[in-house]
Amino acid sequence: MPAKGVLVAVTADVVIAGGGVIGTAIAWRAAMAGLDVVLADPAQGDAASLVAAGMLAPVSEALFGEGALLRINLLAVARFGSFAAELEEVTGQRIGLRREGTLAIAYDPGDYAALMRLTAFRRSAGLDAVELDSRACRKLESFLTPDVHGGVLFAGDWSVDNRRYAAALREAAAAAKVRIVRDRVTEVLTRDGRTRGARLADGGEIASAQVVVAAGCGSSAIAGLPAEVRAAVRPVKGQLLRLRHPDAMPPVISHTIRATVRGADVYLVPRADGEVIVGATQEERGPDRTVTAGGVHDLLHDAMSVLPVTSELILAETCAGLRPGTPDNGPIVGGFGAGDGAGNGPGNGPGNGQRGLLLATGHYRNGILMSPVTADAIVACLTGQPLAAEWEPFTPGRFMSRPGAREGSR
Amino acid sequence: MPAKGVLVAVTADVVIAGGGVIGTAIAWRAAMAGLDVVLADPAQGDAASLVAAGMLAPVSEALFGEGALLRINLLAVARFGSFAAELEEVTGQRIGLRREGTLAIAYDPGDYAALMRLTAFRRSAGLDAVELDSRACRKLESFLTPDVHGGVLFAGDWSVDNRRYAAALREAAAAAKVRIVRDRVTEVLTRDGRTRGARLADGGEIASAQVVVAAGCGSSAIAGLPAEVRAAVRPVKGQLLRLRHPDAMPPVISHTIRATVRGADVYLVPRADGEVIVGATQEERGPDRTVTAGGVHDLLHDAMSVLPVTSELILAETCAGLRPGTPDNGPIVGGFGAGDGAGNGPGNGPGNGQRGLLLATGHYRNGILMSPVTADAIVACLTGQPLAAEWEPFTPGRFMSRPGAREGSR
Repeated sequence: MPAKGVLVAVTADVVIAGGGVIGTAIAWRAAMAGLDVVLADPAQGDAASLVAAGMLAPVSEALFGEGALLRINLLAVARFGSFAAELEEVTGQRIGLRREGTLAIAYDPGDYAALMRLTAFRRSAGLDAVELDSRACRKLESFLTPDVHGGVLFAGDWSVDNRRYAAALREAAAAAKVRIVRDRVTEVLTRDGRTRGARLADGGEIASAQVVVAAGCGSSAIAGLPAEVRAAVRPVKGQLLRLRHPDAMPPVISHTIRATVRGADVYLVPRADGEVIVGATQEERGPDRTVTAGGVHDLLHDAMSVLPVTSELILAETCAGLRPGTPDNGPIVGGFGAGDGAGNGPGNGPGNGQRGLLLATGHYRNGILMSPVTADAIVACLTGQPLAAEWEPFTPGRFMSRPGAREGSR
Repeated sequence: MPAKGVLVAVTADVVIAGGGVIGTAIAWRAAMAGLDVVLADPAQGDAASLVAAGMLAPVSEALFGEGALLRINLLAVARFGSFAAELEEVTGQRIGLRREGTLAIAYDPGDYAALMRLTAFRRSAGLDAVELDSRACRKLESFLTPDVHGGVLFAGDWSVDNRRYAAALREAAAAAKVRIVRDRVTEVLTRDGRTRGARLADGGEIASAQVVVAAGCGSSAIAGLPAEVRAAVRPVKGQLLRLRHPDAMPPVISHTIRATVRGADVYLVPRADGEVIVGATQEERGPDRTVTAGGVHDLLHDAMSVLPVTSELILAETCAGLRPGTPDNGPIVGGFGAGDGAGNGPGNGPGNGQRGLLLATGHYRNGILMSPVTADAIVACLTGQPLAAEWEPFTPGRFMSRPGAREGSR
């Protein structure tokens, strides 16, 4: 592993910029597909995937009208189980996958009306939903406040321990001979419309015919990407709490609880090791990653409103991360050509961007959930296969203003 | 400095058990008085004085009827200025002494009635108090909520940056040739009713004719102290927040604000370096030092109730400390003899405890404020002078059940 500050002369089949769960999942699967992979990231601690609750809920995250996103999310949750099983088998690590489902809670009648609309939407997508009155909610989760108006059990929602998941992915990637460079990609290098490698912050270059940009919010700072794509990614700050049970206190919840408290959303996600994650704010504040008094207060207040016993838990950590948001809330996955995502197919014409450049960013609130299907999609592109049809609405070309580029993304 | 784990054969004039602000202030002053001093503490980070707001407010901490405590507190605040000036001069460090005064705020009419009773009490003690209506409060502190019912400015209250103060004391002590041992005193050693030294956790012993126990809550774990004294000290947990201004935000307060919000007390103490301390809970939970969701929530909630802009501040740190409480809320200062505190005077009879043993603990919420006067009192005892009369109600003998011991404390 080249140390930062040392000029490296490295070649690879593919350089992946960004070592969050998206980049690392791609790196692992690409290496398994026989590619020689370099994964570049200065510090995994910056990844949004380390500040996450790990909910695998295909619909509660999809807003009405985001039909294409819902389809991808449904595929993503269907894929997650086998991907997780393979990851656990390869690494021998447990990633804390939980299948108890989500109990959605409405605090007052207005919250309940909103929950009923969401429930109808989820049912229209073919998902299981069981309506529960206040007493039935408390039968499932005995520490809920009696003030809860009602709820719905979404049995198909899972959760995963995001940090264990990220650590297992890193181990799987390393075991698959992915080379890890602790530095940041500052530029995708091109020559005659083709990718020729990546430049690192320390000035070193890695020569490769393909580059995958999976740097989350950091993607917008990478030179050599089309300006429209760089402009499409923005940070959406999320603050999150990690609570811990005091010694000898039994678990206070067994399901993920998503509550709406007088219009404010809060979730509580239990972990196998006795942690409860409480999240998350959504704030448009640019690159600011500070934990604020108001953010922490609101999370604690809403959590204690539905589950008063939360007040007895230990506040083990407060943190803030930056989700990569996009104008249409959809991820940016694929390349700039037609036929396949990487621009290597016959339909790839001039002016469509550059060959060998792939994007895997903008996953917003769905990065953990989408990481397996994104890795599948990107590895298909890297190995010359076509991008699957369900990804077509999410290629980077949709943000390109030039007509040729837009056609190239269809 | 002997390393922990190494048996030491050390002699000293006095061993001081405990390196919080009380023990370190005593160590510095004792060394300045010509004594050869060993200060033993495993880690200053455990001291309650590092989890404190540093308010120097003689009366708001004294409950009605605690007249003797009030007298000591008034002497303590009068002494603090010259002590601080000498400390800053000796070390060249600034300890963040602020003299803006305290603005006491009442949120609702019930809170205001309680504040008026406190104000009458403070005035009866000869202290300055200026009543202010809501508008006048906001003229002093423009970010206060307009909902504030009213307030009182106590101009004589000061505050100090407790961590800077503790660091300066350590530097002053080291400069005065105090020897610091990074270990815990587990036992005060005696022979024939006289102190002969202290045993450390690593098994080493330090021979000294005088020992000062200034270990806060940890005092109760030290063998060789009378059981009644050990039982008199209990931990009272306090949770506290350190908030920080975001870049470019001007200070949100200039005075210490003590607010009562529907009966709940909260204070906000500004620091020169842009921090605001918010404290503090008072919890009887034994040795538990965890930061809880409920504790942090309540502090944030009450702070934001009176000063809504608090929500915009960065939550830089949450911490919890253990104040050494006593049955009568008074400190435990002095020895077991008559004439002087250390039991060396002519009036010291058998059965009064042991000669050469001094206590300086149980300072509860007033440890920072009382550290200079406590150091003066203890150094007087160590150098054969009588304990000042104002300390007589606070000698350890008041907890001794044997009549002889009680007489010895008068």
